[in-house]
Amino acid sequence: MNQLEQQNKISSVLLVGGTHGNELTGIKLVRHWQTQGVEKQFDSFQLDYLIANPKAVKANKRYLDHDLNRCFKLAELKDESLTSFEQCLAKKIDHQIGPKGNAKVDFIIDLHTSTANMQTNIVLTRIDRFHLQLVAFLKSQLPDVVITSETDLMDDHHFLESIADKGILLEVGPIPQASIEYHCFDTTQKAVRACLDFIEAFNQPSQNDSGLLKNLPDDIEIMTYYSKIYFPTDENDEITASVHPSLIGKAYPKINQGDPIFKSFDGQDILYQGESTYLAFINEAAYYDQNIAMCLCLPKSYSLKTCQVIG
Amino acid sequence: MNQLEQQNKISSVLLVGGTHGNELTGIKLVRHWQTQGVEKQFDSFQLDYLIANPKAVKANKRYLDHDLNRCFKLAELKDESLTSFEQCLAKKIDHQIGPKGNAKVDFIIDLHTSTANMQTNIVLTRIDRFHLQLVAFLKSQLPDVVITSETDLMDDHHFLESIADKGILLEVGPIPQASIEYHCFDTTQKAVRACLDFIEAFNQPSQNDSGLLKNLPDDIEIMTYYSKIYFPTDENDEITASVHPSLIGKAYPKINQGDPIFKSFDGQDILYQGESTYLAFINEAAYYDQNIAMCLCLPKSYSLKTCQVIG
Repeated sequence: MNQLEQQNKISSVLLVGGTHGNELTGIKLVRHWQTQGVEKQFDSFQLDYLIANPKAVKANKRYLDHDLNRCFKLAELKDESLTSFEQCLAKKIDHQIGPKGNAKVDFIIDLHTSTANMQTNIVLTRIDRFHLQLVAFLKSQLPDVVITSETDLMDDHHFLESIADKGILLEVGPIPQASIEYHCFDTTQKAVRACLDFIEAFNQPSQNDSGLLKNLPDDIEIMTYYSKIYFPTDENDEITASVHPSLIGKAYPKINQGDPIFKSFDGQDILYQGESTYLAFINEAAYYDQNIAMCLCLPKSYSLKTCQVIG
Repeated sequence: MNQLEQQNKISSVLLVGGTHGNELTGIKLVRHWQTQGVEKQFDSFQLDYLIANPKAVKANKRYLDHDLNRCFKLAELKDESLTSFEQCLAKKIDHQIGPKGNAKVDFIIDLHTSTANMQTNIVLTRIDRFHLQLVAFLKSQLPDVVITSETDLMDDHHFLESIADKGILLEVGPIPQASIEYHCFDTTQKAVRACLDFIEAFNQPSQNDSGLLKNLPDDIEIMTYYSKIYFPTDENDEITASVHPSLIGKAYPKINQGDPIFKSFDGQDILYQGESTYLAFINEAAYYDQNIAMCLCLPKSYSLKTCQVIG
């Protein structure tokens, strides 16, 4: 193995559940693997586990004071004036597995669920050859995979998985908060296994000419977030309309100007007035705390060779 | 109007939302009607509103210390040693609209949602001619109505709506906690309107020979709860299996001995070993705090004339 390969090798992987305390699937998967062991052994890396916010898990809440998965910007990790429960917890986790930018952990898989129909959603916070190959591999191995990217939203990302140099957030849905469904559990488990298979293959490039990473496509489509839409509200900040029934349960639908987007509680349709786009996190229960009704994204095709957007 | 009719007349109706703080549909409906007014006027009774647990609503949680909708047994309302937040709140509500057994309010509609497919579920805690006529009327007016009864579970009921002599709990689902969907909102709204229509008709019996209550059926089927099934757990009280995927999303399915009921996180089917029965509240997220996986009920047909079970 040459020096470059040695440097790039992923020696340690951290599987994280409970970053949000009421998303039970990841918590259950981490505990199941911790107690039962992984049926398949991986030779080239160590696999560790973390329940990120046990107090929120116990309280059966997404978070106590602040959303933990918005607390990992470098600037905020260094800001000693930020002392809420989750802001302190973020610093503790960063000390334990980081520090961000020079982390003890090479790869983080952070497990989430959504009440929206996100399918098997792999969320990226950085785009480079490694991550493009990873998601192209996952898409080739699993049904219903949708790759999304937060790279256009911010440089220094606030997700827990941004502590390590490499990682993904995995978000499976729809499933209500605070419950478990086998299909969602198994989908999550299969995606994690495929991710670990990729890392094992990546760590053994000499074996890969005929291996797992040989038949990846030339390019891959990534739904790229750029904005969000808020619920209509009255002067008391009370929501005055629901997401339009025609959008409920839909996975990344396209919306055009004039399509119904909300339905007021008086039964009136409210029409979309922007440019054609795609919707995600439609009616996500966890986003009601900010009155976010849905997120906006557009597909971008990335070349696996140049790592640039095509066309 | 004779003395008996005068006594029986329903003068005051209370529409309650937020008994569970994360069931947003009822909260939204109460607030919408409070601010916008009801489009239809009812002459024979006064309609009032209550958000039962505003602190739980603000916290976006079902409850803070105890499930408020389990705190209204007469014995517990009188027990001064019970002083948790919701136990005190129950006493306060009972003082305000009760006292239970001699309440200032004649009829309570308590609005709930479920993450399980409960359809438009009218829950009864007492069965008499009035309530049988009411649910027969609701079933004739609305699609997807299922009448369930808790009368076999306890005499002195613990629901908030048991404060008044008459009332129902209305439970619409499936919908995730902490979110609103127009279909669920509108279904709830229509059921409440139909309930108020019934009360208006009931209050004006002289007009009813050709009216709303004329064409009720002779009997009505009521799904009657008698037991529940708990998740399998390990020595640490950790759930070791999920509800079987074949049951997820099903509305009151029949289950027979040998049918799959759970699927372990190892992927093994676990078979049902009891007598044939019907299932409700399948995988209800709110019941995970007690490891309840589902409830058991059996249909009973009640004669509207004798108010007794038929056959």
